[in-house]
Amino acid sequence: MPTLAQPWPIVRQRTALIIVDMQRVFCEPDGALYVPSTDAVVAPIQALADACRAQSMPVIYLRHVLRGDGRDSGRMRDLYPDVDSVLARDNPQVNIIDALTPKAGDVVVDKLFYSGFHNTDLDTVLRAHDVDTLIVCGTVTNVCCDTTIRDAVHREYKVIVVSDANAAMPYPDLGFGAVSAAEVQKVALTTFAYEFGEVTASADLLPRIRQAF
Amino acid sequence: MPTLAQPWPIVRQRTALIIVDMQRVFCEPDGALYVPSTDAVVAPIQALADACRAQSMPVIYLRHVLRGDGRDSGRMRDLYPDVDSVLARDNPQVNIIDALTPKAGDVVVDKLFYSGFHNTDLDTVLRAHDVDTLIVCGTVTNVCCDTTIRDAVHREYKVIVVSDANAAMPYPDLGFGAVSAAEVQKVALTTFAYEFGEVTASADLLPRIRQAF
Repeated sequence: MPTLAQPWPIVRQRTALIIVDMQRVFCEPDGALYVPSTDAVVAPIQALADACRAQSMPVIYLRHVLRGDGRDSGRMRDLYPDVDSVLARDNPQVNIIDALTPKAGDVVVDKLFYSGFHNTDLDTVLRAHDVDTLIVCGTVTNVCCDTTIRDAVHREYKVIVVSDANAAMPYPDLGFGAVSAAEVQKVALTTFAYEFGEVTASADLLPRIRQAF
Repeated sequence: MPTLAQPWPIVRQRTALIIVDMQRVFCEPDGALYVPSTDAVVAPIQALADACRAQSMPVIYLRHVLRGDGRDSGRMRDLYPDVDSVLARDNPQVNIIDALTPKAGDVVVDKLFYSGFHNTDLDTVLRAHDVDTLIVCGTVTNVCCDTTIRDAVHREYKVIVVSDANAAMPYPDLGFGAVSAAEVQKVALTTFAYEFGEVTASADLLPRIRQAF
């Protein structure tokens, strides 16, 4: 069946960590778009980031940030009418949470929409570092992580999705039945593994990063 | 909750139908990548296409087609090692099924990967026709339809996903539990409705197309 024949090799000079949208707005209980399951991915993401920094692999944060004046919120505003204030660049809620504050040498890429590649310099940064393999973690699994993963694979990047370091959210019944966060996670991770790249857990990946050559 | 406040208006001059990958390889029982639930979407897609043609709205078919020599199969070959033969341009299986054969005036866009926008002329064709609204149907819901929908919404198109005209496939247990086609469909349609645009059924949409001004 179509899953990857071998795990992707972790080559220090060619691998980067992408941390998607671990912003206060999504990760703190008083955030306007709080995703409760982000709590569980903070520690795994810290471990991944520390392991990558120790190997001099780029650690790249994505942030979803808008002008705030309605000029660049695009189609997202159809569904989130308050997005121009909630994700405004002058709203402190768009900052990365304290537990994952970027360190010297890390890269922050601000994006307008769900994909980290859409109208950003992410692809340029990755090519400039000769990166061909991306480790993806963050929130939410099936929206910003998923859209970034699909765009990465279409751009020929080898993608490794970390199963315990991507957080999903539940959905109410929109006519098709209520969906739990666990159900979203199961379908999204299965789709990644079958159609897009490698999916593995931190416990498998961390030693591979530490042993990377 | 974040769903669309109003259904998208169907404006004849600004709306196109996108039919994703209704090719023999995916839709016929002897196809190498047969998706059984495609059987159920053929009649709804025929009805949508006929209604759009009657209103002179563009009917645009996507086909997943490769050179066949391995030069352009990209990351898909990691997961589908036989993709260069299965989707080769000289393999008759890449043709649209007889029941949905394109008619005079329809447009066929060949694509290399899951997204209809990735390195194709789809965006150019749509802009040349001043289209800003897309009705999306075809197969499979969570891969080629989904990736095309995400790319469309990022390009500012208003997207209407037809719930009974997109076909999903089941997945085996890849470490997260087996996933039925119904479960994939539920999660994908819910995600579209909450995060990307409008989701509705043919029974609602066909009269809106026929009454479009």
